[in-house]
Amino acid sequence: MSASPSTSTTDAVHPRFLEKPVINVGVGGLKVVLVQLAVGMDKHHNVTEAVKQIHMAKASGAHLVALPEFFNAPYGTKYFKEYAEKVPDGESCTALKRAAQEAGVYVVGGTLPERCGDKFYNTCTVWDSAGNLIAQHRKVHLFDIDIPGKIRFKESDVLTAGDCITTFECYGVKIGLGICYDLRFFEMAQLMAKEGCSMLIYPGAFNMTTGPKHWELLGRSRANDLQLWVALVSPARDACADYVAWGHSMIINPWGAVVAQLDEKPGQLVGTIDMEPLEAVRSQIPIRSQRRTDLYDTISCKK
Amino acid sequence: MSASPSTSTTDAVHPRFLEKPVINVGVGGLKVVLVQLAVGMDKHHNVTEAVKQIHMAKASGAHLVALPEFFNAPYGTKYFKEYAEKVPDGESCTALKRAAQEAGVYVVGGTLPERCGDKFYNTCTVWDSAGNLIAQHRKVHLFDIDIPGKIRFKESDVLTAGDCITTFECYGVKIGLGICYDLRFFEMAQLMAKEGCSMLIYPGAFNMTTGPKHWELLGRSRANDLQLWVALVSPARDACADYVAWGHSMIINPWGAVVAQLDEKPGQLVGTIDMEPLEAVRSQIPIRSQRRTDLYDTISCKK
Repeated sequence: MSASPSTSTTDAVHPRFLEKPVINVGVGGLKVVLVQLAVGMDKHHNVTEAVKQIHMAKASGAHLVALPEFFNAPYGTKYFKEYAEKVPDGESCTALKRAAQEAGVYVVGGTLPERCGDKFYNTCTVWDSAGNLIAQHRKVHLFDIDIPGKIRFKESDVLTAGDCITTFECYGVKIGLGICYDLRFFEMAQLMAKEGCSMLIYPGAFNMTTGPKHWELLGRSRANDLQLWVALVSPARDACADYVAWGHSMIINPWGAVVAQLDEKPGQLVGTIDMEPLEAVRSQIPIRSQRRTDLYDTISCKK
Repeated sequence: MSASPSTSTTDAVHPRFLEKPVINVGVGGLKVVLVQLAVGMDKHHNVTEAVKQIHMAKASGAHLVALPEFFNAPYGTKYFKEYAEKVPDGESCTALKRAAQEAGVYVVGGTLPERCGDKFYNTCTVWDSAGNLIAQHRKVHLFDIDIPGKIRFKESDVLTAGDCITTFECYGVKIGLGICYDLRFFEMAQLMAKEGCSMLIYPGAFNMTTGPKHWELLGRSRANDLQLWVALVSPARDACADYVAWGHSMIINPWGAVVAQLDEKPGQLVGTIDMEPLEAVRSQIPIRSQRRTDLYDTISCKK
């Protein structure tokens, strides 16, 4: 299948991106494939399966493939250190780099537990279609919650939080990254929107308590409030795992509507990200220009 | 029915409100009644009906009664000037003041077209149970949208926008006000949340296009992202009106769940606002203390 994007006019497109976003991949838009991966205890198997899925996605015409949070490891504080790797030298990064290069697709590598010195992070790596590492996002908001009788989890027992907002470009489309719990924080998403993002991708693993309550609502809230595309990428549900993921990977359009979603089982979700609905909603309900920045604003506080 | 709240310890409660919100009205919480009013062309009739509904709500045990946007006038730019009144001297305010006083309830007076000098505003007045005007919110974001073939509306042809964030207190509960299109702007709601609001009330009249798409989603987004109660108060639907309102007044809890809603017909929605779910969600999913204000913040820009 032909999915090679034209990049010949990319330079000409970028300068006016903020003003009028353009996807430079022909009339079909940016084809995105979300991989709702079945993740088990065997790291090598997880990574091999992810690579296989990347090649399958390419066969479906993907320009960009996104994996879920902890695509190479079971989720749980007790597993973080055991499965951790250096970025970009570890087994998982090496495999992602090669898969992106061989398949010729952009890969948003879900997340993996990253070891850096004596610290550990929940980290998303992004690879372009030539296998270059073009972005690395460390989860900014660690998942520390306690719902009595339902779910208690404290990532901060082991992990260190990142301290950067992360965006990258894919064929002229600016894309922002967040990881799971990051999805709950509007202001982080607003900063990415202000940087010109047309899409936000959140690898995440909500659970059987927060999933049905908030997964879709949060995704739709970001999409609708910021008028951009949102993709949520979960691992498949494994009812026998320590931590049972909700699944339901989905793509939400800039009107805040879910255009496609999976159930809880492993699978691929294929979506086309185009600028028509984004431009339509931004011109028809022009909240972006109507914000009262004489009264309020969202600011970056990064030193 | 007994609905007289105790106010004896109000002063003692206020100083620690931000830390641990308390409703000082006994075990039952704050009883709120939303009036989904049938609004017609006859102003005097509209006002009379609103007063009747306030007394009915009191009979149901209400501590606070909220009316919809444009409770005294049909909605439409061509009607704004004709129906406009000075605040607080006009017929509508006089009637609200008296109703609040006689019924002994707080009244969030939906909105009315306000005349002030040569300017016109879309204004919400709030009256305490002694009939004092305790808050006056002028719609901050004017409704200027254009969805081809569906809905075109430009409030700014006639109205001037307000330039204040407005909150008030009712028996120890801090409540923030927005009007209709204000609901689309997260940052305004965030400022009210930062001031310590436990509830936001939005009189609003979404239409048959934006209503099904966004009314509930926006209400749930504000409630869930800010972990507070949200009340949306619409006029009833009149299919013969120039502007057809969506209806569906609703109350949403701090978990982002709709706890009660009306359909499109006239009616009253009774809800009890208590602090249990608010305290529960804020402690169990502590996003308020987990915000990364080293990376971002929402600030007030008001001079």
